[in-house]
Amino acid sequence: MSSGPLGVAVIGYSFMGKAHSNAWRNVRAFYPSVPQVRQQVLVGRDEAAVKEAGEQYGWAETATDWQAVVARDDVDVVDICTPGDSHCDIALAALAAGKHVLVEKPLANTAAESEAMVAAAREAEGRGVRAMIGFNYRRVPALALARHLIADGRIGRVRQVRAAYLQDWLADETAPMTWRLRREQAGSGVLGDLGSHVVDQLHYLLGDPVVAASGRLRTFVPERPGPGGPEPVTVDDAAWATLETASGVVASMEVSRMATGRKNGLTLEVYGERGSIGFDLERLNELMVLDRPDDVAAGARRVVVTEADHPWLAAWWPPGHVLGWDHTFTSQAADFLTAVDRGTQPQPSFADGLAVQRVLGAIEQSSGEDGRRVVVQAEGAE
Amino acid sequence: MSSGPLGVAVIGYSFMGKAHSNAWRNVRAFYPSVPQVRQQVLVGRDEAAVKEAGEQYGWAETATDWQAVVARDDVDVVDICTPGDSHCDIALAALAAGKHVLVEKPLANTAAESEAMVAAAREAEGRGVRAMIGFNYRRVPALALARHLIADGRIGRVRQVRAAYLQDWLADETAPMTWRLRREQAGSGVLGDLGSHVVDQLHYLLGDPVVAASGRLRTFVPERPGPGGPEPVTVDDAAWATLETASGVVASMEVSRMATGRKNGLTLEVYGERGSIGFDLERLNELMVLDRPDDVAAGARRVVVTEADHPWLAAWWPPGHVLGWDHTFTSQAADFLTAVDRGTQPQPSFADGLAVQRVLGAIEQSSGEDGRRVVVQAEGAE
Amino acid sequence: MSSGPLGVAVIGYSFMGKAHSNAWRNVRAFYPSVPQVRQQVLVGRDEAAVKEAGEQYGWAETATDWQAVVARDDVDVVDICTPGDSHCDIALAALAAGKHVLVEKPLANTAAESEAMVAAAREAEGRGVRAMIGFNYRRVPALALARHLIADGRIGRVRQVRAAYLQDWLADETAPMTWRLRREQAGSGVLGDLGSHVVDQLHYLLGDPVVAASGRLRTFVPERPGPGGPEPVTVDDAAWATLETASGVVASMEVSRMATGRKNGLTLEVYGERGSIGFDLERLNELMVLDRPDDVAAGARRVVVTEADHPWLAAWWPPGHVLGWDHTFTSQAADFLTAVDRGTQPQPSFADGLAVQRVLGAIEQSSGEDGRRVVVQAEGAE
Amino acid sequence: MSSGPLGVAVIGYSFMGKAHSNAWRNVRAFYPSVPQVRQQVLVGRDEAAVKEAGEQYGWAETATDWQAVVARDDVDVVDICTPGDSHCDIALAALAAGKHVLVEKPLANTAAESEAMVAAAREAEGRGVRAMIGFNYRRVPALALARHLIADGRIGRVRQVRAAYLQDWLADETAPMTWRLRREQAGSGVLGDLGSHVVDQLHYLLGDPVVAASGRLRTFVPERPGPGGPEPVTVDDAAWATLETASGVVASMEVSRMATGRKNGLTLEVYGERGSIGFDLERLNELMVLDRPDDVAAGARRVVVTEADHPWLAAWWPPGHVLGWDHTFTSQAADFLTAVDRGTQPQPSFADGLAVQRVLGAIEQSSGEDGRRVVVQAEGAE
Repeated sequence: MSSGPLGVAVIGYSFMGKAHSNAWRNVRAFYPSVPQVRQQVLVGRDEAAVKEAGEQYGWAETATDWQAVVARDDVDVVDICTPGDSHCDIALAALAAGKHVLVEKPLANTAAESEAMVAAAREAEGRGVRAMIGFNYRRVPALALARHLIADGRIGRVRQVRAAYLQDWLADETAPMTWRLRREQAGSGVLGDLGSHVVDQLHYLLGDPVVAASGRLRTFVPERPGPGGPEPVTVDDAAWATLETASGVVASMEVSRMATGRKNGLTLEVYGERGSIGFDLERLNELMVLDRPDDVAAGARRVVVTEADHPWLAAWWPPGHVLGWDHTFTSQAADFLTAVDRGTQPQPSFADGLAVQRVLGAIEQSSGEDGRRVVVQAEGAE
Repeated sequence: MSSGPLGVAVIGYSFMGKAHSNAWRNVRAFYPSVPQVRQQVLVGRDEAAVKEAGEQYGWAETATDWQAVVARDDVDVVDICTPGDSHCDIALAALAAGKHVLVEKPLANTAAESEAMVAAAREAEGRGVRAMIGFNYRRVPALALARHLIADGRIGRVRQVRAAYLQDWLADETAPMTWRLRREQAGSGVLGDLGSHVVDQLHYLLGDPVVAASGRLRTFVPERPGPGGPEPVTVDDAAWATLETASGVVASMEVSRMATGRKNGLTLEVYGERGSIGFDLERLNELMVLDRPDDVAAGARRVVVTEADHPWLAAWWPPGHVLGWDHTFTSQAADFLTAVDRGTQPQPSFADGLAVQRVLGAIEQSSGEDGRRVVVQAEGAE
Repeated sequence: MSSGPLGVAVIGYSFMGKAHSNAWRNVRAFYPSVPQVRQQVLVGRDEAAVKEAGEQYGWAETATDWQAVVARDDVDVVDICTPGDSHCDIALAALAAGKHVLVEKPLANTAAESEAMVAAAREAEGRGVRAMIGFNYRRVPALALARHLIADGRIGRVRQVRAAYLQDWLADETAPMTWRLRREQAGSGVLGDLGSHVVDQLHYLLGDPVVAASGRLRTFVPERPGPGGPEPVTVDDAAWATLETASGVVASMEVSRMATGRKNGLTLEVYGERGSIGFDLERLNELMVLDRPDDVAAGARRVVVTEADHPWLAAWWPPGHVLGWDHTFTSQAADFLTAVDRGTQPQPSFADGLAVQRVLGAIEQSSGEDGRRVVVQAEGAE
Repeated sequence: MSSGPLGVAVIGYSFMGKAHSNAWRNVRAFYPSVPQVRQQVLVGRDEAAVKEAGEQYGWAETATDWQAVVARDDVDVVDICTPGDSHCDIALAALAAGKHVLVEKPLANTAAESEAMVAAAREAEGRGVRAMIGFNYRRVPALALARHLIADGRIGRVRQVRAAYLQDWLADETAPMTWRLRREQAGSGVLGDLGSHVVDQLHYLLGDPVVAASGRLRTFVPERPGPGGPEPVTVDDAAWATLETASGVVASMEVSRMATGRKNGLTLEVYGERGSIGFDLERLNELMVLDRPDDVAAGARRVVVTEADHPWLAAWWPPGHVLGWDHTFTSQAADFLTAVDRGTQPQPSFADGLAVQRVLGAIEQSSGEDGRRVVVQAEGAE
């Protein structure tokens, strides 16, 4: 490893590359105790475009050859923001080269790749090399507070979770074909894209793995206009599942890209024996909390999660000065750097990412078997 | 039939009997154009208790023998508010005696009884005798407005519905055993009680029957304290289903008596190609409506459904002077009386009630078959 | 007084007459322990119209001569629902005749009349005759719960109240002229109509009289179309005030008939040293309550005020089965009858009504003096 | 001026210094078309503290002598984030030295200083030097959309505005004394701090100056614990005002630091002849919009203001990926730089800041004169 600030390389420069660049540029301004970082190199296939993005986002250099980049001595951290089909190759190369790796979700597009990545991360861990998957919503302060309150017993033992992640960017049936709607490139549709966040939140909030699933997938608009005429949509537009955890919680899940009017509606309702919790990502600074159900004035509280004693908030602004979506990536980068610095395992791990993939796999399998309940492949079964 | 005001008999005097009595007492004050009614007789098995209730709720007489009552010449309308296991006997006797019948949901506890009631209602219709099932939420003005807006094309063709009906009166695991938690008496648990409202609303809002279902039932608290010690709970505490309609809409449904903090949370979200609609029974005077999704100021509107041009509202109070839960029964009584007066079929019919029962039956069957999709028995298949 | 049920006469049969009739018709069905009542006679000037209303609302008789009615032996209760300019004459005659009197707010249109009514009520009290003013929002369960929580110290000592009552039925400048917009008939505009509710709620919630006021009145639309052409509007369309109570609370008040989109928006926010309370009449079954401000999960709770241990609710429906606007009149009638039965002073008294009028008078005076602070005339100063 | 990137100096390194540093660090990443900037020097009086802040926030250098800094050739922009009492001196020196100046609100603590700054800015404008005041909430996308919709006539002519800015950091009466509560240092209390934002928003949203004011100021907690015992609080804890604009709009304003449970509650309701608009800073990505009041489904829409065609949003993230409070400063910096680049007047100007100060002055004067209406000093009257 290089001495001095940690050199960071981000692979990929579009939506996620922009969000991660923002995190690296700002992490030290809010978390001054983390190791110093250098925004060393931004990598992309289109030389002109990545150069422009690199200048805009504050990178020292840009490059087109990720293999060369992950081998560089002045690169200590490789942050993978490419589409899912290249995650495995890059991660394996980076870990082999002794680089700490942060990979955007999903871990990979296939089970085999995901398992290889988990194995590589475990091997690298022995060498002091860290690997993390980027489920950024784990760094939403309201959700971290929710997790804390649940663990603390505020709402009693959890029985039911009602979860959805609804967007509407495909509601218009004339919206054009994109690579995201082709199975061979995207791996999956809304189930992998949004469903993965839902399942990871279940694991995160409850600390209790999903062990069985019934599911249904649906493509509402079977073809969309492409440059040369209509093209078939080969992934799901919407998906539904009923999930069971190891401890017996039942969770319902609904995800869609067709829910007209919902822009980024990740909603979670957690019902426990003595209270409940609610969350809506469109209001990410708020958490609904109900406890003390026998109080004459019982009801769901709207907690504005912006106090200094709320997770990550001490680093930011005074009470009521709300955070945005991108701040979750900055806090994620801080936690990653802290783990690197302290030699601990950053959370969530590649294994956490694999666990999510396996639940999604069970949902998809169930959908193919007419909704029949499918047991999720056990951990360590790769 | 008697001349003069229509004589009404209500069978049952507890929760539903109170609500229906309230409707008969008030219907003409708000809907003066319906036929006049006499609150003739309230019927119950406990002579002292029914006498007290009858005086309280404004009945001329009380009685304990429903058979005698349904045969009386001065009774024109029989309104059945007993538990489900007696619905069939009373309805059949009343229809045979030429009385117009209103029966609280569910139609009956068994498929055979429900089918017999539908047949009897059809036969009676030929004699000018009316039969109606009381899904009172069809008379929530906001839901009637929703139906109108959907039929009018405001939100385009519907693709998805997300529905739940959540209460919490069983969340406390020390809550005592009741007859409602014994299968032999209650017929079913939350699925029949709250799920029936959800399914009827799907039929009502969409005008599109549910044709297939995947479901799961769950009893979270398997025994509860009875007078002589713990007793087994033999019905469901919560249920989940994924439903498909004839036209291809997918609806998710979640019902529970364990959702701590939810008091009477019937929530409906209807997503169409060009808009969406939302409703929460705890705010029954409001409807959320999104249309014109391409407007720069698009968003879900909170419509306070209290205007004179909203369904039933001309009969009540000025804008913003909200209605309560019980007003739905008064409007239901008005619609029933209007149908009687005009010689038309009141809505919803016994057949509508049977259609709901069959969907619930498919959900329960699916739950017993590990979630496998089950086709709902077709209309006319009795 | 007559033996048997109390005979009730309602004077006035339009909006308020309908609401009060509904209360008398239903009060015993929900509050069986109150004295029995007979809906004896509905009084109005238009013989045909009052006859039709009387039949619709369940009255035994109708009449056009209120003087004769208040003298009848079979009338025990006189309930005054006429415009404010006749309140004094009817109330004085009824009290003199030994009838219990319920008068709709405002107490009267002038200070002199209001003072005469208070004096008459005090005199009648010595004879066992009861007098009450009908500020029905005192019977909104959520507001009664608010009062209880404040008195109980839940939010600490109150410092500020932010209050508004906003409607929009005059927002359209082409809305026609009515008698309500003529000072000689209506007495005042929105200040008297809606402002009176706000001031009474301040008194009710805080138990602390308003002692000084700064105010401003405004007529946005100075003339409106009448049958014979434009007519001048001689009352206020909107009003603003800053109020101080005896204990030092500052309350802001804004009332308007021009607030486009607000249908019946009485909103109250009460800020205390250790918590706060919020209310919106358009959601009359809900109360927002914040206490324990130092809890990590502090926030404003949405209390669905429909539990059996909430004020008046034991008489009605199960949790979550919401009440409407008109139920407040039924509970008001029950409280009136209970006071009559027990020989206690029903709340609010005529003196409470006068106290409200004096605050409104101070606001109006201040508006005429360029906003200068005006001290409210003291109690007992008539 | 220097060639190459514009050199920026920020004077002040605490709360506002952190927020502005964040803006300069990120502005080009989101607004690549603005001139390039160098974070040249951060200035503060405490050498060690400013050095630490400078490193954390990404500044090339730090310094303690602002006079020297504003004279440097490599500084092109001076951004003043100090307390109000030094704004004038720094701004005048910087403008005289030909530096573009951004000053945090308030413009200055006294009228004389504010007027001098306006004069200096006008003089500098002739030399191509730009001056801007930092009312960052003008860059809340929802508020900019509100302004656009109002200007566009969506809600018709505006009649009333109901505004508040409520916080609670002083609700606890044991909260310690700070310089912000001493008149000689802070200039004013909540009126200047939060009231200034309210008044600027009125000017911004309506484009219509406030011309008269009635006001009341109140200090609820007259002394607070200091290091040497209780100290007197010499500024206002809360303030109320009724304001009139040139065109006849009436606006009510309430500001407080004692509103328990309100963290950063800037709420605005704008009522026009044909619609209304609502906003709450605690939900800064949302705008409530009501138009088409005659539609059967009329109601206030919740617009999630995160679309690419919403103000500034094209620069940020996809729909539903919400912004935070600090993003407003980044957009403000972008607009400032664009104005510098194009040679136009950045908005709001120093004169806009002075206009706000004069309204606040009128409120304070009115409070001293028992609430009497005070005419705001006219523009150009300095």
